[in-house]
Amino acid sequence: MSFDEQLSDKTAYINKTIKGYLPKKEGFQKTIFQAMNYSVLAGGKRIRPLLMQETYRLFGGKGKEIEPLMAAIEMIHTSSLVHDDLPCMDNDEYRRGKKTTWAVFGEDMATLAGDALLLYAFEVASKAFEMSCDPQKAGRAIHILANKAGIYGMVGGQVVDIEATNTKIAKDKLLYTYRLKTGALLEASMMAGATMGGAKEEEIRAMERIASDIGLAFQIQDDILDVTSSIEILGKTTFSDEKNHKTTYVTLEGVDKAGKEVKALSRRALENLAQFSDSNHFLYQLIEMLITREK
Amino acid sequence: MSFDEQLSDKTAYINKTIKGYLPKKEGFQKTIFQAMNYSVLAGGKRIRPLLMQETYRLFGGKGKEIEPLMAAIEMIHTSSLVHDDLPCMDNDEYRRGKKTTWAVFGEDMATLAGDALLLYAFEVASKAFEMSCDPQKAGRAIHILANKAGIYGMVGGQVVDIEATNTKIAKDKLLYTYRLKTGALLEASMMAGATMGGAKEEEIRAMERIASDIGLAFQIQDDILDVTSSIEILGKTTFSDEKNHKTTYVTLEGVDKAGKEVKALSRRALENLAQFSDSNHFLYQLIEMLITREK
Repeated sequence: MSFDEQLSDKTAYINKTIKGYLPKKEGFQKTIFQAMNYSVLAGGKRIRPLLMQETYRLFGGKGKEIEPLMAAIEMIHTSSLVHDDLPCMDNDEYRRGKKTTWAVFGEDMATLAGDALLLYAFEVASKAFEMSCDPQKAGRAIHILANKAGIYGMVGGQVVDIEATNTKIAKDKLLYTYRLKTGALLEASMMAGATMGGAKEEEIRAMERIASDIGLAFQIQDDILDVTSSIEILGKTTFSDEKNHKTTYVTLEGVDKAGKEVKALSRRALENLAQFSDSNHFLYQLIEMLITREK
Repeated sequence: MSFDEQLSDKTAYINKTIKGYLPKKEGFQKTIFQAMNYSVLAGGKRIRPLLMQETYRLFGGKGKEIEPLMAAIEMIHTSSLVHDDLPCMDNDEYRRGKKTTWAVFGEDMATLAGDALLLYAFEVASKAFEMSCDPQKAGRAIHILANKAGIYGMVGGQVVDIEATNTKIAKDKLLYTYRLKTGALLEASMMAGATMGGAKEEEIRAMERIASDIGLAFQIQDDILDVTSSIEILGKTTFSDEKNHKTTYVTLEGVDKAGKEVKALSRRALENLAQFSDSNHFLYQLIEMLITREK
């Protein structure tokens, strides 16, 4: 099977898995069930659960104990998008060509839907305790999820990002923001996958470093596409960073140096992965795809 | 020591414990650390950690493994207040005489502070894995926290409550909302305390029923105080339910029947607790105080 066919099959399986974990219950609070389903099923490439599953397999994991954690990380990611789109944040009415959650359900319900997704993520994640023969592993994975999504990870990155709007920031702060805002949940995906797959401590740390490089390369590639791509290919407005007076890797270092940095980071991530990757060629290709993407 | 002295001592200890778990780290994202500290330390009676700790002791728990979970439930509770106060929700500028989080830090930071508190709650809660000799117990406690705070608990109750504004709702829906919105986190407190203390399944369920009755009685007492108390005693506006066209137990059944219901629920809760409470008279008194409060 080609990489594209494998990717398509695996994504379909992940979509089915996530859907299976979403609340279906009818009840007085059905609006929130609808808002959660709407936002999670609005699309997305499911990169985080994919990375988690493939890293789990890389370390020999074979069971279904990883699935609640895969659903959980996608719910956490979706929660951040729902809150990001709110009028008091980015004020976006559309995402991926669809109305955002607040535009459909109202600001109050979208605020609660984001909260509900975070809480439900941990409710679902805690099913890993019953499914795994090693509750310590599940405990560690839950800690990783909370830590990398929170103030020392994704949310921390969003905070610095918001405060940096309309100001010029230095390179160290920019890279810190990128590693947190984009990198942290990718780190969580690979670390939790490795943990559940039975990886040793130094192997979990190696996955963290690889994912951190992938996140940074991914974000710098985003900056490059913003000035080199077109709205037709990208599916969203270009030159948005300039319009928003945002400091990016490209505004600080230029397109050429940015491109070189993406290549260097990718090479390092793939070299580090190569030590582990005999058994998972798909993961290697997935990471290559993420970094060299054109949209 | 009198009950009041014990309560004051225990609350002081809980405040110290919670403070110890709040993030202190300086860094690029220090605004979010400040917003989290501000909102958690703005006050509150710490009822949930108190109930958790005392139920833990009721079942023979003696260690510190309960403390991260006590801090976690207070963070979850605070998160709900921070988001509740937002302009797109209740639009409150003051709570307990202090500026609300969004009024001090802005709507975007308050949205992120609520998210951060939820995520940090689970980061802190997962420390119970390292501290407890039984990771299954910690896993169960985390599941209880997420379940009772989420769509089948507190958030679910908020959703029904918001949708019921300006509409007349039936008694079954009203009681459902009360049990979720107010009761669920009290249930989580007593259930998690019992779980960590080593209670058996039927004992955990008994705590759930007791806490559910307490929550309902507490909420109906709130409705009564809204029409019988004064702003001087209550510290907040009276007749707010009438002004907001809210269905309450009092608008449905009248003050007298509401008073009788509070008494009946309290009697049932305390009778059910009495089977367990030889070893924890303080818990018995705490529950009596919660229900018969005048403000």
